[in-house]
Amino acid sequence: MIRTPYLLFLGDAPDQLAAKVAQGIKDWRPENAVGQLRMPGCKADLGIADLSLQDARAKGAQTLVIGVANRGGVISDAWKVVLREALEAGFDLASGLHNLLMDEPDLKELAESLGRKLHDVRVPSVDYPIANGKKRSGKRVLAVGTDCSVGKMYTGLAVDAEMRKRGMKSTFRPTGQTGILITGGGVPLDAVVADFMAGAVEWLTPPNEDDHWDIIEGQGSLFHASYSGVTMALVHGGQPDALILSHEPTRPHMRGLPDYALPSLEDVRDVALRLAQVVNPDCKVVGASINTQHMTEEAAAAYCAEVEARLGLPTVDPFRHGAQRLVDALDAL
Amino acid sequence: MIRTPYLLFLGDAPDQLAAKVAQGIKDWRPENAVGQLRMPGCKADLGIADLSLQDARAKGAQTLVIGVANRGGVISDAWKVVLREALEAGFDLASGLHNLLMDEPDLKELAESLGRKLHDVRVPSVDYPIANGKKRSGKRVLAVGTDCSVGKMYTGLAVDAEMRKRGMKSTFRPTGQTGILITGGGVPLDAVVADFMAGAVEWLTPPNEDDHWDIIEGQGSLFHASYSGVTMALVHGGQPDALILSHEPTRPHMRGLPDYALPSLEDVRDVALRLAQVVNPDCKVVGASINTQHMTEEAAAAYCAEVEARLGLPTVDPFRHGAQRLVDALDAL
Repeated sequence: MIRTPYLLFLGDAPDQLAAKVAQGIKDWRPENAVGQLRMPGCKADLGIADLSLQDARAKGAQTLVIGVANRGGVISDAWKVVLREALEAGFDLASGLHNLLMDEPDLKELAESLGRKLHDVRVPSVDYPIANGKKRSGKRVLAVGTDCSVGKMYTGLAVDAEMRKRGMKSTFRPTGQTGILITGGGVPLDAVVADFMAGAVEWLTPPNEDDHWDIIEGQGSLFHASYSGVTMALVHGGQPDALILSHEPTRPHMRGLPDYALPSLEDVRDVALRLAQVVNPDCKVVGASINTQHMTEEAAAAYCAEVEARLGLPTVDPFRHGAQRLVDALDAL
Repeated sequence: MIRTPYLLFLGDAPDQLAAKVAQGIKDWRPENAVGQLRMPGCKADLGIADLSLQDARAKGAQTLVIGVANRGGVISDAWKVVLREALEAGFDLASGLHNLLMDEPDLKELAESLGRKLHDVRVPSVDYPIANGKKRSGKRVLAVGTDCSVGKMYTGLAVDAEMRKRGMKSTFRPTGQTGILITGGGVPLDAVVADFMAGAVEWLTPPNEDDHWDIIEGQGSLFHASYSGVTMALVHGGQPDALILSHEPTRPHMRGLPDYALPSLEDVRDVALRLAQVVNPDCKVVGASINTQHMTEEAAAAYCAEVEARLGLPTVDPFRHGAQRLVDALDAL
C-alpha cells in the first residue's frame, strides 16, 4: 500500500489533460490530496492548495504522487531535482509512468539511504498465488466493456462513491495504475504473469462481510483481440455477483484494432454472463453504463433510453446521470 | 531456438514416468534424439543408444536436454558434474525444470566463459508484441479442452504427425515447456506477462502459405478458473480456423479445483466457437479428441461413438485410434 495522504506533483504539465491522474485522485479521493505541487510553466491546476514540500509534510502528506504524464518518455532533470528534494523532505514517491522510478539510479540510491519507498505502480510488487476458485463471502461487481477505455474505471468509482454516500459497505478494487494511485493499492493486472492473473484478482478481493461490495475495476474486453485474456482473468478471479455492461457508442472500431467493429451490448452480456457463471452460477447482469461524453444531452438521453428498452436493464451515463440507478440495482440483488 | 539434435539426459530417474519429457522427444521427434545419457541408478530407458557426451558430440548432438523431473526441487551436485562436463564438451543445455539453469552461478559462469547457451524453456526469452488482431494467411487449428491436462498437446502432436505423413504442410507450435523441448522452440505462454499473451501467440504463428497448417498447442481451459485467461489469449491470438474439442471422461472435477465439475463438450464448443469467431468469423469446430487412457477398449469405443452421435463431429482418441479422422476433417475445410 502507498502511504496516504498525498502531495500531487503536476510538474510542468503542458495542459490540464496531462494531469488526469492527479485529477482522478482529487475527484475520487479528495481526502488523499493534501495539495498540489506545480513547477514553473505548469498549465494544469486542480483548484486545491499549492503547497511546498515542507508545508505539505506539515499537513501530513506522506507520499509525493506523480500525477502527470511525462514528455518524451524520460524523467527530466528538472523533475529529478524536485523528486530528490521530496525524498529528503521525508516523502515516499509513487508513479504510474512507463519509465520506472526504480530504474533511476540516483533516486533509488537516495531512497534506500533515507529509508523511503519508491512505488512504481505498473510493476507487481507481490507474489500472487494461483487462483483456487473457492467461493468467497461478500459481494462483487465487475464492469465488462464492449472495448477498452469505455469508462469501466469511472463506472466503478461512481458506483463506489454512491454506495459510500448511502452508507453501504463498499471498496473499490483497482486493477490499473490510475486506480491504484487513486486509492493507494491494487493489482497492475496487465503486468502480472499469465499463470497468476486470476489468482491476483482473488488476492485483491478477499472474503468479506456478506453485505460488503467489492467494486472490481474492469480492464480490456472479452472481445478485444489483444487484451481479452486479462478480462477473462477478471471474470474468473473476480467471481462477480453482478456485471455492469460498459459502452462508448461513438467508437468507430475497437481501440487499436482498426479491422474490428465493436460487439453489441447483447454480445457482451451473453458471453460475459456465461463465463462468469462458471465461477458464480448466480451472477446477474444488472445494468448498463454508457459513456456519452461525445454526445449531446439529448442524444445521450435517447441512447440510454433505447438501450434500456432493448436490454431491460437500468442504463445510465454515471457522469451525466449519476450512478444511483446502478446502485439501486446492485442493492436489490 | 534450441540447437538440435539432442542428447537426452535422464539423470538418476526413479522410474520411467519421471523421464516423460525425454520420452516425448523420442516419440515425436526421434530425429532430434541422438541418444540417451543415464547416470548410475537410472530406472528409465527410452530404448535408444546410451551415449557418452563425447560419442554424442561425435554423432552431431548440439544440446543436452534435461528430459527428467528433478527430486526435491534442486539441481543436485551429481547432476551438476554431468552438466558441467557437457558444457566443456561443447553442448548447450536445455531444461524445463522449475529451478532455472541460469540461477545456478557455476553453470552460468561456465556457459558464459565457453560461449554456450542455457535454455530455461519456462522463461520467455523474447519481448513479445501486443497483439494486433490482423488476419494472417495460412491455416491454424487449436485444441480447446474441458479442463487442463486432458490431452491437448498429444492431440496437436498426433495431428501434426498425421499431416506430415500425408505430405501436408504442417508445423506444431508449442506453448508449454514440454512441447518447446520436443520441437526446439515455442512460447512458454503461462509465463508471459498478461498484456503480451495474445501477441506472443501471434508471434508464434506468423503468416504462412495458404495451405500450411499451424497446429497450436492448447493450454488450460476457458472453464478453468485459474488459467482461463491463458486459454483466451490462445483463442484470440491464435486466430484458429478450426477447433478440436478435448476431453478426459473420467476426471471427477476440474484439475486442482475440487469444487468445480467439468463443463460438457457442448459448453466448450459453444463458448470457444463464439470467442474464436471474434477474430475469425469462419472458424469451425471440426472434431473431438477423447483421452480414454483410463477406459477399457470397449468403453472407449462406446464413449467416442456416443459423443460422435451427439455432437455430429468425428470423435477419436488419437492415441488408440489415430488422428486420421481429425486430419480428414481439417483437410476438408
